[in-house]
Amino acid sequence: MAVPGQIASDSSAKPMRAARFYGKEDIQIKDDISRPVCGEGQVKVEPAFVGICGTDLHEYLGGPNFSPTEPHPVTKEKIPITIGHEFSGTVKEIGKNVSGFKIGDQVVVQPTVYCASCGACKVGAENACAAGGFVGLSGAGGGMSEEVVMPQISVLPLPSNVNLDVGALVEPLAVAWHAVDASPIADMKEPKCLVMGGGPIGLAVIQVLLARGTKVVICSEVAKKRQDFAKDFGAHYIVDPSSEDVVQRSLDICGGVNGPDIVFDCAGVPASVKASCTAVRSRGTVINVAIFEKEIPFNPMWLTFREATYKSVLGYQRKDYEGVLDALSKGTIKPAGMITGKIKMQDLVKEGYMPLINEKDKHVKILVDIQASM
Amino acid sequence: MAVPGQIASDSSAKPMRAARFYGKEDIQIKDDISRPVCGEGQVKVEPAFVGICGTDLHEYLGGPNFSPTEPHPVTKEKIPITIGHEFSGTVKEIGKNVSGFKIGDQVVVQPTVYCASCGACKVGAENACAAGGFVGLSGAGGGMSEEVVMPQISVLPLPSNVNLDVGALVEPLAVAWHAVDASPIADMKEPKCLVMGGGPIGLAVIQVLLARGTKVVICSEVAKKRQDFAKDFGAHYIVDPSSEDVVQRSLDICGGVNGPDIVFDCAGVPASVKASCTAVRSRGTVINVAIFEKEIPFNPMWLTFREATYKSVLGYQRKDYEGVLDALSKGTIKPAGMITGKIKMQDLVKEGYMPLINEKDKHVKILVDIQASM
Repeated sequence: MAVPGQIASDSSAKPMRAARFYGKEDIQIKDDISRPVCGEGQVKVEPAFVGICGTDLHEYLGGPNFSPTEPHPVTKEKIPITIGHEFSGTVKEIGKNVSGFKIGDQVVVQPTVYCASCGACKVGAENACAAGGFVGLSGAGGGMSEEVVMPQISVLPLPSNVNLDVGALVEPLAVAWHAVDASPIADMKEPKCLVMGGGPIGLAVIQVLLARGTKVVICSEVAKKRQDFAKDFGAHYIVDPSSEDVVQRSLDICGGVNGPDIVFDCAGVPASVKASCTAVRSRGTVINVAIFEKEIPFNPMWLTFREATYKSVLGYQRKDYEGVLDALSKGTIKPAGMITGKIKMQDLVKEGYMPLINEKDKHVKILVDIQASM
Repeated sequence: MAVPGQIASDSSAKPMRAARFYGKEDIQIKDDISRPVCGEGQVKVEPAFVGICGTDLHEYLGGPNFSPTEPHPVTKEKIPITIGHEFSGTVKEIGKNVSGFKIGDQVVVQPTVYCASCGACKVGAENACAAGGFVGLSGAGGGMSEEVVMPQISVLPLPSNVNLDVGALVEPLAVAWHAVDASPIADMKEPKCLVMGGGPIGLAVIQVLLARGTKVVICSEVAKKRQDFAKDFGAHYIVDPSSEDVVQRSLDICGGVNGPDIVFDCAGVPASVKASCTAVRSRGTVINVAIFEKEIPFNPMWLTFREATYKSVLGYQRKDYEGVLDALSKGTIKPAGMITGKIKMQDLVKEGYMPLINEKDKHVKILVDIQASM
């Protein structure tokens, strides 16, 4: 079976255009990149729309952190690498022994790469593979290019009633789906949930919670514009931690005796960790969806005093993509409002990265329109 | 129903002897303490053996921390208070509307007091009651006295084949039972477990794990004498973190692909937290049994990279006492070797607290023999 992250390239074919990450504050649009070869068990996808992710911004501003500076254990590549891991596209070529696809199919790509042999992979947690990574962050191509080759297991059909631009939102929604799925929500009758942070992932979690029928969704967010987004996407209560006590307010909203059953930390700052752990009800669960760059002050007693559980999640799996695609098809998630801009690849830094860095409250997702960039 | 922690006293009766905590480094043996009244739904117990706990030592050395300096919300008492919360005894008097006991029965006392109305109590987690405490730490009497009155729900019969001195070990064993019960051990076929720390609670966890049939129990402990205790109580592997890499060693012991399924942190220092979170296998569980006095450096990514769960537990419930008593009766736990000394109440500080503080590696549990002290 073709393994995600292992592709061949054809240096004799006409080279292609791609956006490449070279290192801190260095992204270049190149026209001399070798095209990938569509081998057995693989599908070649022509990217349509690619979302810019917070991780991309972190790499640009302070990286390379995640991007390999030595050959990546799975992709064998190191920087410069092609970027873009949140993307939709159309099928351009189908390798041998691939079934279920035809040329021109609209699809989304699950960019996870993994080793298939480490402890995480052995227990079915390939999303937390010790050697894992993502197409578009770890090598093996990326969405910001003319062509990407993936094993068929990583390519999923986009429902016919979902547009390609919305398809680029499946990846962040899958992060949220995975986080909600890792929580005990399925075992609860009427869970009350608190979402810390109204950025792209917080908004995605809010939408997934609503799609799953959650009746009480509280969002804690400082920025006014993001509070509005959270409300637009259906959060029932908005708490502003700069002027309100999140712990007390969420306790009050939940009836005054016990706090929220589940708290999703999508903010990932010391204050959100403490608030998450002290707001959650007795025997409740905190799901950490955030990424941390360094150690933070933490007191296990925050959890002890309520016998609470703190669970950290990473990325997503194919089942999460399937869950999101099903919800999009049924219309229980309508995320188009997350798209706050569409740009060309040539304007990636100026019109994509910079607004997301400097005016982040105004934006949720800026998409790169690949076909308009060629 | 009589509520734990609410008792009346009889100032007209002949006063009794008790060991009382007045504050930091101030414990006094008094002979003028009022006897408790055995009211409706209550049982009066004559303590036999009382264990000295790490919490007692913390209060003595640096307290009052846990001991109330203002009237406790449940017991309404403040220091000075009678100490001793790990104890066995015999039934001396039986209140109205109490069934199932007769005078002279050998029993153990579950010392938990709680409010019965807070969020924790409402979800059946009265062990994490916001206003909770313990008889012997929070007022309402204590084991180091001639008499204690408890509601019948807090008094459990000692199996006929278990001695009163071993009965005083039920409390620390119940802490361990509760911790193991809170882990996913019941859902696992052949769990591999790592216990951080070989002090009284670590040794209790080792015994409970073995009683539940665990085939791989690793204990990480620095002190040589405690390593010996851990081995004596059946740990299959001993790792010395001062000379070995706990994470690598436990990975190797577990087969080299994945680390332990469950890690119990009974050490509660920054190094044990990091080692617990990074030793546990992908999607494994860390159970924190330790108490922390302040914030520690923590990186949620330790858990994220393995999608692990960190769960903190506190104290025990009646079901945990029942579990321990059943195991003692069946002989699947044989904890008598934990008793490393028996002293009189009059020698409490000199022969009890001081050896536990200054020669802690030599001791596990020192018991106060109450009947020999009167």
